[in-house]
Amino acid sequence: MVANREQIARAAIRRLNADPVASMTQIAESAGVSRATLHRHFASREELMGELGRLSVASWRQVLDDAGVDEAVAEGSAAAITAALDALCHHWIRDVEEFGFALTETGAYGHDELLIAVEEQHAREHAFYAAAQHAGVVRGDMSAVWIAHAAFGLLVGLREALRRGDIAVRDGERLLRESFLRGCAA
Amino acid sequence: MVANREQIARAAIRRLNADPVASMTQIAESAGVSRATLHRHFASREELMGELGRLSVASWRQVLDDAGVDEAVAEGSAAAITAALDALCHHWIRDVEEFGFALTETGAYGHDELLIAVEEQHAREHAFYAAAQHAGVVRGDMSAVWIAHAAFGLLVGLREALRRGDIAVRDGERLLRESFLRGCAA
Repeated sequence: MVANREQIARAAIRRLNADPVASMTQIAESAGVSRATLHRHFASREELMGELGRLSVASWRQVLDDAGVDEAVAEGSAAAITAALDALCHHWIRDVEEFGFALTETGAYGHDELLIAVEEQHAREHAFYAAAQHAGVVRGDMSAVWIAHAAFGLLVGLREALRRGDIAVRDGERLLRESFLRGCAA
Repeated sequence: MVANREQIARAAIRRLNADPVASMTQIAESAGVSRATLHRHFASREELMGELGRLSVASWRQVLDDAGVDEAVAEGSAAAITAALDALCHHWIRDVEEFGFALTETGAYGHDELLIAVEEQHAREHAFYAAAQHAGVVRGDMSAVWIAHAAFGLLVGLREALRRGDIAVRDGERLLRESFLRGCAA
């Protein structure tokens, strides 16, 4: 099988999820290609990270699409918002499993057009949490922007818990949802 | 002023907190030293990251010490656990402001002796959350290990919120405590 650019990038993400400091040589091994082939597709680690950033932002956009956050904002009812929030928790798990590494890989988001895409997804999330506050689904005593950061942070925590093998994959969605919505106090 | 190794490392952290992809040249500028001086202290970015990891783990240990988590575990009462949990939220803010960058800098924790120190702090946290569950302060339907990951994740979210200027520094402690303990649902 001759691996193409996207196949190599996806193999790189899987390797980096498990081992965030994997070298380009180790990444080539995991992708089943020679170091020369890896370099033909990605001249540098920076270029590879840029591609991972692009795939990761596309995945984030897809999660928001799949959860129907824009439609829920337009509808505005507590029922619609609650359903979208529930769907978000469900789809986030897939995103963390596939793109966990890129969540905090700052080198992945250096390009201007990617930064614009990142800000677009942030804006969609903020509009969603503001609508959730308006509908009485989410607390009103914390800003919608903070609530988005809290959710992001819990995804990073989930990534670490999975990478260390500290929680079961099947438990991830419940732990995320409960921690995000109801917190850890008894 | 002649900057020493630790002063340079602390200036590097401040720069990296604001700009995680700052180059060695930019880090030298922020520390007020020449690139040659920076290189005399840290031969490579990897060596600098190792020093930041060391300082960061020392700070994490200090947070757990200052919050009195071991004493609270030994005491075991709900009052002692609640006081330590409250103190943790307070001291974490300082840690995020000073060492936010290092929270997810995987390159910072590569050395064996550092990994041992990291595991020691993990173990202290897990013992604390297990005691908090036993005392009825923290939920029993999520593992103590997950609760530690959730707290870590929220610190990463807090770091991002501060770096982007999305929340006020003075609000950080309340947002962290409320999100961690009570969650974001209305």
